[in-house]
Amino acid sequence: MQLSSSLLENAVSEFAKLPGIGKKTALRLVIHLLKQEEAVVNHFGESIIKMRREIKFCQRCFNVADGDICAVCANSLRKQEVICVVENIRDVVAIESTQQFNGVYHVLGGVISPLDGIGPDQLNIEPLINRALKEKAQEIIFALSPTIQGDTTIYYIQKKFKSLPVKITTIARGIAFGGELEYADEMTLARSITNRMPVESYVNR
Amino acid sequence: MQLSSSLLENAVSEFAKLPGIGKKTALRLVIHLLKQEEAVVNHFGESIIKMRREIKFCQRCFNVADGDICAVCANSLRKQEVICVVENIRDVVAIESTQQFNGVYHVLGGVISPLDGIGPDQLNIEPLINRALKEKAQEIIFALSPTIQGDTTIYYIQKKFKSLPVKITTIARGIAFGGELEYADEMTLARSITNRMPVESYVNR
Repeated sequence: MQLSSSLLENAVSEFAKLPGIGKKTALRLVIHLLKQEEAVVNHFGESIIKMRREIKFCQRCFNVADGDICAVCANSLRKQEVICVVENIRDVVAIESTQQFNGVYHVLGGVISPLDGIGPDQLNIEPLINRALKEKAQEIIFALSPTIQGDTTIYYIQKKFKSLPVKITTIARGIAFGGELEYADEMTLARSITNRMPVESYVNR
Repeated sequence: MQLSSSLLENAVSEFAKLPGIGKKTALRLVIHLLKQEEAVVNHFGESIIKMRREIKFCQRCFNVADGDICAVCANSLRKQEVICVVENIRDVVAIESTQQFNGVYHVLGGVISPLDGIGPDQLNIEPLINRALKEKAQEIIFALSPTIQGDTTIYYIQKKFKSLPVKITTIARGIAFGGELEYADEMTLARSITNRMPVESYVNR
């Protein structure tokens, strides 16, 4: 794509570096910004620069934070001894938006995946174990991707907790709400039959 | 969406203001930037701020430019007396990327659309007429949207040129290359039959 202005071209190629944004979309976004007031565009650029420069990661759960401890960990109304283990920050946001979880988080930073060169040492597993011990965690809920890598990670971590008096659970897996049986994959359907649940617990939810 | 960091939240809401970018996509983009080096993110933000602050519009054709005149107008290899009239900068980019046009452009800034409150005075029509007169344009090619508004704009402008010795054309309309006849709308198909072209001119292209 050849543009008549190198300033425009730079801005477009910067946007096109973002995941899922091609040259055409980048151009559309840049032209949108071009039409905005200068102050609006300054605010856009500066808030992103500022975010990258000043953001911190919570020293306890590795979630993003404005200070040393994130807002979730700092909230005394939340159950600090129930820890939900997630892969990344996006998963924290997804669970938070359900408004169904009142504990705290632990962001692993990924899952064990030898093929991608990610072993336990690259993840925040050690800090999780230390933290659970120190804080006398009562329950650890795994909310990881339903993949072999996710399952491997769960298996690896739960072995470490074997001798400790902590409840280890994982989020329920089965047929998605609103999903149709005939389109569910065999693995999910098979597991959902094996792990069937009493109707009363389902109805009471 | 509630995030554990107000810095992150600001950046996400800035991205979510862009057209076609929802909260979830915005979060994905921001988290991508969060993972980049600080210098990379600074460059991203600054190139956008700089673009908005320093970009100019070509005094002749209203295309974006780094200086007073855009790169297309400044290019002496291009036919300066063949003017392609387009709605916006994106259309310039689209035509430029075909590498089939060797003339210059004129960006109208939209099309006449009374329902949206856009009359001829809101568009760069007057400058087009003055420019065509002054520069003794030989041909004016309309490359506007195939809508009633586009056609109205063509009609309005060509009336102004009636008494002048300038050739007025419009880009060909018909069945798109690779398109299937049975899925073409009736209007397009009807017009493409009425405006049928000699096979020799088609083959020679």
